[in-house]
Amino acid sequence: MTPIDPVLTETIRNPQTVLSALDFAGVAVFAATGALAAAREKHDLVTFAFFAAITGVGGGTLRDLLIGVPVFWVQDWRYIAVCLVAALAIWLLGWRDWRFRALLWLDAVGLAAYGVMGAAKAMAVGAPPLICVVMGTLTACFGGVIRDLLAGQPSILLRREIAVSAAILAATVYVTLRTFEAERWTAAAVAMVLGFALRACALRWGWSLPGFPSGPTRS
Amino acid sequence: MTPIDPVLTETIRNPQTVLSALDFAGVAVFAATGALAAAREKHDLVTFAFFAAITGVGGGTLRDLLIGVPVFWVQDWRYIAVCLVAALAIWLLGWRDWRFRALLWLDAVGLAAYGVMGAAKAMAVGAPPLICVVMGTLTACFGGVIRDLLAGQPSILLRREIAVSAAILAATVYVTLRTFEAERWTAAAVAMVLGFALRACALRWGWSLPGFPSGPTRS
Amino acid sequence: MTPIDPVLTETIRNPQTVLSALDFAGVAVFAATGALAAAREKHDLVTFAFFAAITGVGGGTLRDLLIGVPVFWVQDWRYIAVCLVAALAIWLLGWRDWRFRALLWLDAVGLAAYGVMGAAKAMAVGAPPLICVVMGTLTACFGGVIRDLLAGQPSILLRREIAVSAAILAATVYVTLRTFEAERWTAAAVAMVLGFALRACALRWGWSLPGFPSGPTRS
Repeated sequence: MTPIDPVLTETIRNPQTVLSALDFAGVAVFAATGALAAAREKHDLVTFAFFAAITGVGGGTLRDLLIGVPVFWVQDWRYIAVCLVAALAIWLLGWRDWRFRALLWLDAVGLAAYGVMGAAKAMAVGAPPLICVVMGTLTACFGGVIRDLLAGQPSILLRREIAVSAAILAATVYVTLRTFEAERWTAAAVAMVLGFALRACALRWGWSLPGFPSGPTRS
Repeated sequence: MTPIDPVLTETIRNPQTVLSALDFAGVAVFAATGALAAAREKHDLVTFAFFAAITGVGGGTLRDLLIGVPVFWVQDWRYIAVCLVAALAIWLLGWRDWRFRALLWLDAVGLAAYGVMGAAKAMAVGAPPLICVVMGTLTACFGGVIRDLLAGQPSILLRREIAVSAAILAATVYVTLRTFEAERWTAAAVAMVLGFALRACALRWGWSLPGFPSGPTRS
Repeated sequence: MTPIDPVLTETIRNPQTVLSALDFAGVAVFAATGALAAAREKHDLVTFAFFAAITGVGGGTLRDLLIGVPVFWVQDWRYIAVCLVAALAIWLLGWRDWRFRALLWLDAVGLAAYGVMGAAKAMAVGAPPLICVVMGTLTACFGGVIRDLLAGQPSILLRREIAVSAAILAATVYVTLRTFEAERWTAAAVAMVLGFALRACALRWGWSLPGFPSGPTRS
């Protein structure tokens, strides 16, 4: 029997460390999608870094400003460092179509995880349940919205593909379970799995929401 | 003689309740214009909700962040609820051209009312008069600016039609009257009527400001 | 020998006054570039004022919100007044191509100066060095990014021309020198000169950063 790595054991025993590692992983995934948006347009390294940082920390920044707590990355420089490393990694590794597809799936995990984390942070400062769901959704989606806005591309807001909905589902399930006093980690796990499952179905089978049926006829 | 509804009587006696009702009405009108922007592009219900919320509370959110007070809708979930109801209403009622025109007029009322309310909130935290006018204008206009930016449409900033000017007028009149110690409700009423009148003239007779006369010749 | 103006003497003796004068000069230059963006599209005077104000104070506003200090122009109305005067000046003076080119060079000074000032303000609230560089860069560049976003033009983020890099250089040099305990004014002067020199080379010889070499082939 191989001896178990003591750091890994410690990590498993201490959920705070797991959460923190997940948090950095989430920022890295979002930052990588930002850098890829820059790669698609063949931008330079500075723009890679800018897009990576905005996409990686944008949603959480808006959440922290709105709920009135110190912005999470301003006192802890490692978040921005993770974004810069992600930008550099995409630059050095180069574009491969399969990498782009792999990132879509990692992004789906990030969407569900950030929906839950954003809602949890808003609950921690005592925001009402509906507002916690809004904060979870913003945390998960807003970085991508700014990325697309700056890149001049249609954002997920303007596509009918199910993406924002998955974040809303994850945040809603977490807030509902916690309101009925479910254990924190159980609630987070259930919410993340459901949110990810919805986004995965959308990716796999192209699920989308119906558009507004009536509307002005365009000339 | 018909007996008067006691709730209505109470409302008339208590200006705070009137103001609060007006505030929710204003959010609802702005949110409806946001949902209509989504309707024009035949978006789905989630996008309707997003556009309604951003347009409904966007201007006031920026104002509160800038003057450093808690963001108004974060502790009171009813503002977001009103936005969601407005989005759902537009979705269910469907598009009618006359409704769009009716909303333009309601929007004109909202523009004048929010110019005054935003300025009043900034005065309450002791901002200088010029800054109060800026805050009133931002409160009235910024939600619409973000809405158009996200929808990829030219914003009111880029059209010469008089709209921002009406909000500036309303805020300026209110701040001026209050600086000369006019009674709060009188000042608000005069400012709103003047701001609305200016916007109404622009809607009715297509008033617009002159554009920059000189400029580079386009090739 | 002509007697020296006593106000000028006082100004030279008191660096705080110089800094304050430079600060207003920087806001005025950025505001003028905002007004010019409005001039290029032949907008009206209200839009001139809006673009001038957003470009003039936008970067510093984001910095102050992120580091959690009161927004600099909300308590001191003179910053907005300077923006309005700059907008009016551009409107009255009219478009001349040489003025546009002159502003590009003033803008280069502003870019370097604001990179330093933004970093210095972040250091004053105890942010980590990497974050101070980010804040310097945001202060120098973000006003222009919002200006271009609202004007519907490709922002400096999307061009490979060296502009953001000059702000990064200025902020990095200042933060590095200060970390090694260089004297405040020496550090600021060296950082500004280097940042300006880089931007000047980019303007003079069209220096730009290399774009991402690999990437998806567009169909």
